[in-house]
Amino acid sequence: MTKPHPSVELIVTNGTILTMDPAQPRIEDGAVAISEGRIVEIGPAAVFAGRPAARRIDARGGIVMPGLVNCHTHAAMTCFRGIADDLPLETWLNEHIFPAEAELDADAVYWGTLLACAEMIRSGTTCFCDMYLFEESVARAAKDACMRAVVGEVLYDFPSPNYGPIEEGFAYTRQMAARWKDDPLVSVAVEPHSPYLCGPSLLEEAARISSEAGIPLIVHVAETRAEVERSLGERGLTPVQYLAEVGALSERLLACHCVWLDERDIELLYQFGVKVAHNPESNMKLASGIAPVPEMLDAGICVGLGTDGCASNNDLDLFGEMDTAAKLHKVNTLDPTVVDAEQVLKMATCNGARALGLSAVTGSLTPGKRADLIVVDTDRPHLTPMYNPVSHLVYAARGSDVSTVVIDGKPVMEDRRLLTLDLEEIRNAVSAIARRVRRR
Amino acid sequence: MTKPHPSVELIVTNGTILTMDPAQPRIEDGAVAISEGRIVEIGPAAVFAGRPAARRIDARGGIVMPGLVNCHTHAAMTCFRGIADDLPLETWLNEHIFPAEAELDADAVYWGTLLACAEMIRSGTTCFCDMYLFEESVARAAKDACMRAVVGEVLYDFPSPNYGPIEEGFAYTRQMAARWKDDPLVSVAVEPHSPYLCGPSLLEEAARISSEAGIPLIVHVAETRAEVERSLGERGLTPVQYLAEVGALSERLLACHCVWLDERDIELLYQFGVKVAHNPESNMKLASGIAPVPEMLDAGICVGLGTDGCASNNDLDLFGEMDTAAKLHKVNTLDPTVVDAEQVLKMATCNGARALGLSAVTGSLTPGKRADLIVVDTDRPHLTPMYNPVSHLVYAARGSDVSTVVIDGKPVMEDRRLLTLDLEEIRNAVSAIARRVRRR
Repeated sequence: MTKPHPSVELIVTNGTILTMDPAQPRIEDGAVAISEGRIVEIGPAAVFAGRPAARRIDARGGIVMPGLVNCHTHAAMTCFRGIADDLPLETWLNEHIFPAEAELDADAVYWGTLLACAEMIRSGTTCFCDMYLFEESVARAAKDACMRAVVGEVLYDFPSPNYGPIEEGFAYTRQMAARWKDDPLVSVAVEPHSPYLCGPSLLEEAARISSEAGIPLIVHVAETRAEVERSLGERGLTPVQYLAEVGALSERLLACHCVWLDERDIELLYQFGVKVAHNPESNMKLASGIAPVPEMLDAGICVGLGTDGCASNNDLDLFGEMDTAAKLHKVNTLDPTVVDAEQVLKMATCNGARALGLSAVTGSLTPGKRADLIVVDTDRPHLTPMYNPVSHLVYAARGSDVSTVVIDGKPVMEDRRLLTLDLEEIRNAVSAIARRVRRR
Repeated sequence: MTKPHPSVELIVTNGTILTMDPAQPRIEDGAVAISEGRIVEIGPAAVFAGRPAARRIDARGGIVMPGLVNCHTHAAMTCFRGIADDLPLETWLNEHIFPAEAELDADAVYWGTLLACAEMIRSGTTCFCDMYLFEESVARAAKDACMRAVVGEVLYDFPSPNYGPIEEGFAYTRQMAARWKDDPLVSVAVEPHSPYLCGPSLLEEAARISSEAGIPLIVHVAETRAEVERSLGERGLTPVQYLAEVGALSERLLACHCVWLDERDIELLYQFGVKVAHNPESNMKLASGIAPVPEMLDAGICVGLGTDGCASNNDLDLFGEMDTAAKLHKVNTLDPTVVDAEQVLKMATCNGARALGLSAVTGSLTPGKRADLIVVDTDRPHLTPMYNPVSHLVYAARGSDVSTVVIDGKPVMEDRRLLTLDLEEIRNAVSAIARRVRRR
């Protein structure tokens, strides 16, 4: 007989447990016990029926699964959602996004990120990876929302509205990394924008900080065909080859987008253990292209899923992103068997966590990991009947089906009520930012 | 001064009115007055403030817009959602869908369609066009749900589990057309399955019935490359050319899918005033291909939007379908300006209604048309702030943001509560069907 854990804080019970852990993939009528923010035990609900616990959450027959991991976003761009669409990339950036971003400051980024956290929690995301300006504000917002986050100040060779010259950017990154080192929720990455905005010395120094601090290095790579053509023209190297040359390829590197890769690029990414963040909806909306995800998966590359910023999506709902990811590669290859539902669910959970260097922490319901989990309410017309939970999660569920969210053992949404955020306050703050943007 | 309409039944007020009628596209703080199921007046909310009405609905600052039109579905396939995915088309059909469909009868189709109606109403669809077996059950379900529907029994050259030989199929169609002729909600179409399952005499007779009764002719056309190759091999004609040869092309024809068209096909469709139902998510999931929608729109063809059956989607949410339609063609052409949000919104509303021959009835908020409208609740994190309602509807909103639905002047959902359907009863009936299917 197993001795019950003495001090169980929370039991989530009465659901189909989908762990995303191959050791024990599914329990039909199960429960998850949480103590000190960690998953301590998973088993049949009956086993936990008489077990004492400070708090119980009834999943009411829904699906209990790991919280989703958004591997690439610019959270505070909630402030600019829908400001301009359906435009050529240059027009969109130069005439709309860049002028709007001139209105940003640390305060605006804080409120925009809180709004993003509200949207992400409501749609089942428990962990996000951010790249933007004023990232100390992003860290504070994630912490206040009680969300897990990997944050990193965007670095490039021209002066930043936040830190000024690049030397200060490195200092800002090192200081953030030190400040958040032992935080249970927030961790820091080094985030040079892209091979086209970062020269060799910037990338070398960024890779050095990543290596010394043992933290992720996160870069936009090969997002558009124009970027690759320019890189070939200027350096005779693809963006991936350029990153290899400056020593930036490693298993700590998360390469975002990777839309335009050749076979050699894929081979390089695999050899160095580089992880990839796939952002299909943003790549579609900006007409960037379709990333070779089936080829990357075949090569053995770890691919996570991201929404990108919601000015180019325009939402942060990973359920929609999973649906799109599963379908896009089928039509692109004219093969309905590629990138199946199970693979996509892994991209949005365990593989996403691995891509962020957090596979010991989150991404699956595994005893010992931090308790980041969600309950999907399946008592809905569009999820009735249910032959296969994995199919429903990828092809039929929407973010709005998430009823309860627990992060680091703490309930942050219960029965669709947000517990850590004051929506009224956030809306008022972001509406004031939007008025400033509109006046511009 | 305008004389107020004497007997206003319902006023929907306090919303941004998006009419989809070029005569008066938008009213910022407006109201819609409804009498005897028709829109009688649209104007500023202040004008209607003191106006007597039997009932008022407060849109609470949300978007009031025409109900969405789903131009192509097989509603009762809700019974098979998620039964099999990620398979080659032949395996999926022969080993999963066809055996499951052997469990269908008139009763199962009735309950499966009611479940679909619940999902469609909840996600803002007020009108759907159906092709399946036992369509009299679909008509009854739509009527009971109080949804607008165009229904048609699927016709092909082999015996049907419903009507038997094709002669009986024509009789069944004629009888249905006569029975529902004056119904305010349900109308009937002639629906030969496809050029590959229907010989010339079937198609000629179907076109004759359509012409004599003045009702739509609805056919699956050029859905897969294999279909086109077989048609060229067997007849030396594309599916569209074959339909032209048998006299099936006319402005009453709704051609569903139209994925594999050549320039001459597009020209023929335009010349004959044929309408097209575009089903991007089904085409993606089944790896059928990407329809040349920008080319069809450029040619002047009326294109509506459909979800197809939810076994190949796997939902009936037109908000998701709009999002996908807008993005898919951008990435396919590498041009972010094609198929913009406004065009997609037209596809899902006024152009969808036109495609079904219902442009005098529904598809826009126009005085004189039947009152099919929805309220989209914009007081949500993912719709805050709002720079542009059209962008939000296509790129950020989800079906779950619809709070209120009025069809033919009658509220069928208010504050997310379904008013015409008993979900418990529907779920029990469909669960029993699913148990039969599972046993097989």
